[in-house]
Amino acid sequence: MGEVVDRALRALDAARRGPAEIWIELRDEVDVVMSAADVERRLDAGEHVPLAAMTVAVKDNIDVAGVPTTAGCVAYAYLPDTDAPAVAGLTAAGAVVIGKTNLDQFATGLVGTRSPHGVVRNSVDRRYVSGGSSSGSAVAVALGQVDVALGTDTAGSGRVPAAFNGIVGLKPTRGLISTHGVVPACASLDCVSVFATTVAAAHAAAAAAASGKWHGAFGDPFRRQPPAVTPLTIESVGVPDADELELTDAYRALWEGTVSALREAGVRLVPLALSELMEAGSLLYNGGLVAERYAAVGDFIEKHPDDVDPTVRAIIVGAAEVPAYRLAADLDRLEELRSGVAVQFRQFDAFLLPTAPLHPTIDEVAADPIGLNQRLGIYNNFCNLLDLSALTLPAGRTTAGLPFGVTCYAPAFADAALAGFGHAFMGESASPYPESLPPLGQADARREVAVVGAHLRGQPLNGQLVRLGARFVTQTRTAPKYRLYALPSEPAKPGLVSATAGEGVAVEIEIWSMNDAAFAELTATTLPPLAIGQVETAEGRTLPGFLCQAGPLLLSSP
Amino acid sequence: MGEVVDRALRALDAARRGPAEIWIELRDEVDVVMSAADVERRLDAGEHVPLAAMTVAVKDNIDVAGVPTTAGCVAYAYLPDTDAPAVAGLTAAGAVVIGKTNLDQFATGLVGTRSPHGVVRNSVDRRYVSGGSSSGSAVAVALGQVDVALGTDTAGSGRVPAAFNGIVGLKPTRGLISTHGVVPACASLDCVSVFATTVAAAHAAAAAAASGKWHGAFGDPFRRQPPAVTPLTIESVGVPDADELELTDAYRALWEGTVSALREAGVRLVPLALSELMEAGSLLYNGGLVAERYAAVGDFIEKHPDDVDPTVRAIIVGAAEVPAYRLAADLDRLEELRSGVAVQFRQFDAFLLPTAPLHPTIDEVAADPIGLNQRLGIYNNFCNLLDLSALTLPAGRTTAGLPFGVTCYAPAFADAALAGFGHAFMGESASPYPESLPPLGQADARREVAVVGAHLRGQPLNGQLVRLGARFVTQTRTAPKYRLYALPSEPAKPGLVSATAGEGVAVEIEIWSMNDAAFAELTATTLPPLAIGQVETAEGRTLPGFLCQAGPLLLSSP
Repeated sequence: MGEVVDRALRALDAARRGPAEIWIELRDEVDVVMSAADVERRLDAGEHVPLAAMTVAVKDNIDVAGVPTTAGCVAYAYLPDTDAPAVAGLTAAGAVVIGKTNLDQFATGLVGTRSPHGVVRNSVDRRYVSGGSSSGSAVAVALGQVDVALGTDTAGSGRVPAAFNGIVGLKPTRGLISTHGVVPACASLDCVSVFATTVAAAHAAAAAAASGKWHGAFGDPFRRQPPAVTPLTIESVGVPDADELELTDAYRALWEGTVSALREAGVRLVPLALSELMEAGSLLYNGGLVAERYAAVGDFIEKHPDDVDPTVRAIIVGAAEVPAYRLAADLDRLEELRSGVAVQFRQFDAFLLPTAPLHPTIDEVAADPIGLNQRLGIYNNFCNLLDLSALTLPAGRTTAGLPFGVTCYAPAFADAALAGFGHAFMGESASPYPESLPPLGQADARREVAVVGAHLRGQPLNGQLVRLGARFVTQTRTAPKYRLYALPSEPAKPGLVSATAGEGVAVEIEIWSMNDAAFAELTATTLPPLAIGQVETAEGRTLPGFLCQAGPLLLSSP
Repeated sequence: MGEVVDRALRALDAARRGPAEIWIELRDEVDVVMSAADVERRLDAGEHVPLAAMTVAVKDNIDVAGVPTTAGCVAYAYLPDTDAPAVAGLTAAGAVVIGKTNLDQFATGLVGTRSPHGVVRNSVDRRYVSGGSSSGSAVAVALGQVDVALGTDTAGSGRVPAAFNGIVGLKPTRGLISTHGVVPACASLDCVSVFATTVAAAHAAAAAAASGKWHGAFGDPFRRQPPAVTPLTIESVGVPDADELELTDAYRALWEGTVSALREAGVRLVPLALSELMEAGSLLYNGGLVAERYAAVGDFIEKHPDDVDPTVRAIIVGAAEVPAYRLAADLDRLEELRSGVAVQFRQFDAFLLPTAPLHPTIDEVAADPIGLNQRLGIYNNFCNLLDLSALTLPAGRTTAGLPFGVTCYAPAFADAALAGFGHAFMGESASPYPESLPPLGQADARREVAVVGAHLRGQPLNGQLVRLGARFVTQTRTAPKYRLYALPSEPAKPGLVSATAGEGVAVEIEIWSMNDAAFAELTATTLPPLAIGQVETAEGRTLPGFLCQAGPLLLSSP
């Protein structure tokens, strides 16, 4: 038995030991062992398996082949025969699924109490709610039972439970991870999300989940491809006036400390106006947008009233009466709000908010199940409506020991930039970008470029590549047809030149990959006597790379 | 009085001479003269005015400052004090607005008969309908009163009237032209469209309209920016099985002739499945999507029932009863259909359909106003729902002399590729791309590149630039610091090399512009000994351009 099987069995054992409400169904031990053994076989065969031995929990509204999908409602259950693409992507990258986790029924709730499988208690203090709807997934990660967990996030379900349990919650750009095989809440807004204890693990798992493709004859509705140009860094952050925030005293102190720390770390802070965000959020639950939930499961709920949580039923059935023109007007208003927020984004790269204004106990939620749930959504509901990417980060603990979380919001397809921000925020050392998977939200089509001399890792011009979002691929040599010349720079840098036949040597090069926009910018900013031409590698490939241009400056300094 | 004023006055005069139903309001002669005189002043001052002397009609649901906007309903009228961005963009490019044209009220209809200002009669045979809703705009162009006209197109209003009057109808990608200052029909689907007698004129006018920006504090809702990479050419075209098309005999003969001509012209024809298109179209008028029209003007219509065309009123008020969950379900179904069509687009670059299945007389429409209108929509309704760009082209006349039109549909942001297709289809000689305006649907951010030798216009490698969608900017010379060397090619091509101080000459170069994707591709496919480095121009600019790489091959052949 190798390490992968061992880790998987330890995760399964931890899950079995409870608390019982976290999981709706664990996979059979023999299935877990077979999955893990398969990863070991791949490793033994020399395959690069980027997420080998990563253990995963899957929210029970996402299909795992051979395990029932219930969405927290036994009467609704069905047995899928294929993994959702999000799960398949993780498995293909070497992760091992342990089981299916509890949730607020039909992913309707931010509390973690709306489930026939029991209220999910907070991982730090069991009197408090876990947050939801991805309650079991967040607690399984917070308790260390698994490395990462998939959740879903339509209006905050991937963020509130992360904050309440002191872990990372990554809500990718809508459409990056297929929602095929996911029970729809609001199909046009649903996102598969990831919980982990580090940004690096969350980002790697999300990138793997995003690599999963749906293999149906039809296309993958709601799926989107990243554009060729995406943001690379977050240098300025919008923050609201503290007076405008609804926060408990304990949370307020932690919020102010977080903002101060960012300022001290050199992040440029810019005022954020809340009104558009708040109005967009209010459209989600006070307007016609709940009708999409009714369209998805209303028919089922009308036929099975006694099988459904009464709060969930009341919310969804209430949407049956909303007229279409009100939904149409809300959708149009949303376009206006979206463009208003786009104007704000000209002032900053991302904005930061507390993830929740307060952390209620289980008893408090039982006494006011709808009102408190709504308050938990105020800094969350707008996100997918406004087409934002989001990353929830732990930001300290109250004196009572309860975790506090903040969420950083950025435009669609800024996922990799958010990961970089979160990575710095958490002080993580491992790279936030998964090796051998394209970073989440970055265009797939990538140019490979041969770099030499001062552009190699550790050399003075390497930062130019990093700033363009380029990624190191491999180290190799040129074909034995080149020589390095000293360039007329101070200090003299080496430049690659084609040699006379028989006089060339194999020069050390690195191959870096980047998207079209980065490659165009690299080419356009290459300074004489360097130029971008074709370089032949030792393996016989020809690819663009740094060469010297012909001319007297160069000739005079061989 | 110069030529611009003269042309504008002649257009105004032609408009005044009728038919009266084409126009709802003509601008005052003094205003027209002042606008035209302003263009002449700009020309006299040496300004490049790309659309100087182009005369324009504007559909009366688009704001022109100082002229009432009525949407074909006098009780609804308001007096805008600024031009819609689409109009402002045309005016900034030198076009002169003549007046506002008749339309199916609230842009609701494809017939041209639903207006208190009179039925708009066909430009060829007045017993027949003009098509709508942009009826007056199409007929004004077809009769030669103006060069181009703005329409709007939600479900075919920019295409059916083009086909019925034998002119070009350009329906750009949704969001390229601002819809600010346009009376909403279905706000999320509305497009400003362009009528002209040539593809080149339509494309130039659309590019100018797209350059108009809304200067409000808020963003511009529904506006979209083109991605960095967009399709450049249309080489394969989907066509349905002729048996599946509903067509009159006269139209069927013309359709089959059109398809044969394309095949003979070397266009690769690929089978097109109609089912997804037809289902999407049916959602527009049989489902919840009409509710967006009710959201826009329902309140007005309920309060002014007698001021509204009875057919228009029945359609829009009927949408009040549709529940939101049905609209939500329709929108989700639409995402599935959209992804299904995306799968079809892997087989071809664009697809072609007859614009309308038949051409009814005015009497026939009066007898069956809703049924015939729906039939006119079958090859149109799906377009904006599926996020397509479209170009309607004249394709012959029936033996009775009535025009027949076809529409070429492509994915969003394929507008420039569609223009190229239409240009070839029409056998036009002038470039389809407007000088000094970025082609419609192409990303704004453009790289300028210095080309030399074999890449100059008329030289053997120039086609490489054209295929990448690059555009000629200007001809100039390098700084006197270079020499041309004969490259070791057969025949010998010239290559640019930096010269020893004092020995250089000013070499003829051209500057071409292209987007990031094209520049990246150009760089990556440049063959040795050429490379992309920095070139200094006679004007002192430094920009990327073709140079020679250093090495023995080059040195041996000065």
